[in-house]
Amino acid sequence: MEQKTEKKKKATIIVLGGDFDKLFAAFTIATGAAASNMDVTMFFTFWGLRGIKKNMRTGRGFFGRMVGLIEGGDITKANPSKYGFLGMGRWMFGKMMKNKNVAGLTELRQLSIDLGVKMYSCITSMEIMEIDREQLIDEVAGVAGAALMVEEAQNSEISLFI
Amino acid sequence: MEQKTEKKKKATIIVLGGDFDKLFAAFTIATGAAASNMDVTMFFTFWGLRGIKKNMRTGRGFFGRMVGLIEGGDITKANPSKYGFLGMGRWMFGKMMKNKNVAGLTELRQLSIDLGVKMYSCITSMEIMEIDREQLIDEVAGVAGAALMVEEAQNSEISLFI
Amino acid sequence: MEQKTEKKKKATIIVLGGDFDKLFAAFTIATGAAASNMDVTMFFTFWGLRGIKKNMRTGRGFFGRMVGLIEGGDITKANPSKYGFLGMGRWMFGKMMKNKNVAGLTELRQLSIDLGVKMYSCITSMEIMEIDREQLIDEVAGVAGAALMVEEAQNSEISLFI
Repeated sequence: MEQKTEKKKKATIIVLGGDFDKLFAAFTIATGAAASNMDVTMFFTFWGLRGIKKNMRTGRGFFGRMVGLIEGGDITKANPSKYGFLGMGRWMFGKMMKNKNVAGLTELRQLSIDLGVKMYSCITSMEIMEIDREQLIDEVAGVAGAALMVEEAQNSEISLFI
Repeated sequence: MEQKTEKKKKATIIVLGGDFDKLFAAFTIATGAAASNMDVTMFFTFWGLRGIKKNMRTGRGFFGRMVGLIEGGDITKANPSKYGFLGMGRWMFGKMMKNKNVAGLTELRQLSIDLGVKMYSCITSMEIMEIDREQLIDEVAGVAGAALMVEEAQNSEISLFI
Repeated sequence: MEQKTEKKKKATIIVLGGDFDKLFAAFTIATGAAASNMDVTMFFTFWGLRGIKKNMRTGRGFFGRMVGLIEGGDITKANPSKYGFLGMGRWMFGKMMKNKNVAGLTELRQLSIDLGVKMYSCITSMEIMEIDREQLIDEVAGVAGAALMVEEAQNSEISLFI
């Protein structure tokens, strides 16, 4: 009898945005795709690195420290792309989501990890912003360049840039 | 004689942005794809909901009302992502487009509808922002979650996140 | 003996954003895909036109001049989507990239051209913003509408909206 092994469909999500709404969309799509039995890869670049950073300042050099001062903090500090003033929008959306029992960013990320979503960090962004591997959460699968990202994307049924 | 029925190619457009330029791009691509005989599905989420809202305040609870106060208004109130100050950019782009006889947002959306573009609203965004089905235009095909969106996207030749 | 000619895989990148980080991501992905032997097409629209403009004011009419006053300048004047205040973010990122020997925007664009990336300009955006063909860099392959863009995208393994 023939054993048929169906090849899993793939999704690649490139995350440039570090705003609450961008990260929320990215992890929602990632978990949705993984729950639909897809093989999901996420590439975090530039502001998107907030999605996989630990809660610590970034950068050792002068400029790295400057970016760290402004962009410091982990996923729990992500502000919506609008109404971010003084963390107000973040507080408001946090409240609204809790009221409706909608999973927050940290839970969505954990769910992505539990569902086997692979997360990569963009090497160029890390160099520019002076972020080390140890400053990223342990679950990150690796540090990668554009070549790996392109290879994943061209073999994916869904490729999105967020 | 064999009758060959060619399967239509599909396009899925996820619309997170509610800015004038984001919505303009989304509806331009949607109409372009539909005019090229593609089967087009749009998913409106978060700020993108502006693209399919009726002209009324959103939200019934406290937070919903707050978001409504700021984000109130329909597609005609979309500001460009830059120079939105006091509706100035919206007025300027409106003038520039009229001068050049370029179709505005409302016309582009109507054209999308006429060309059979299917529009879905993201259920999670509606819950968080306290938006009801009646607050969306009648032409919306339905309210959907990430699962439907992922299924559409993985069967599409074009999937874009705007 | 049979000669097997493998069809090149295709990538289509639609560039709406004119921010430093958006253009940086667009050209990085374009060069990465071209280096992986893909056939790459970029469509520049709206703010993204900054990526292929010469260093001159845009627009001849009143509104075109107004946009030109604010959006004037070429790719070297692209500010990051955050911390763009007074060109500060641009200066900072320029410094950080030079420190790390990371290629700048102008070099990345030149590399894209050298690798055969085809660049198109969106005709509607040019009309609205009153930008002429002569105001774009010579290497631009042509001015195109949504129809060409859709056709390229539906035949591409990777389609991204940036």
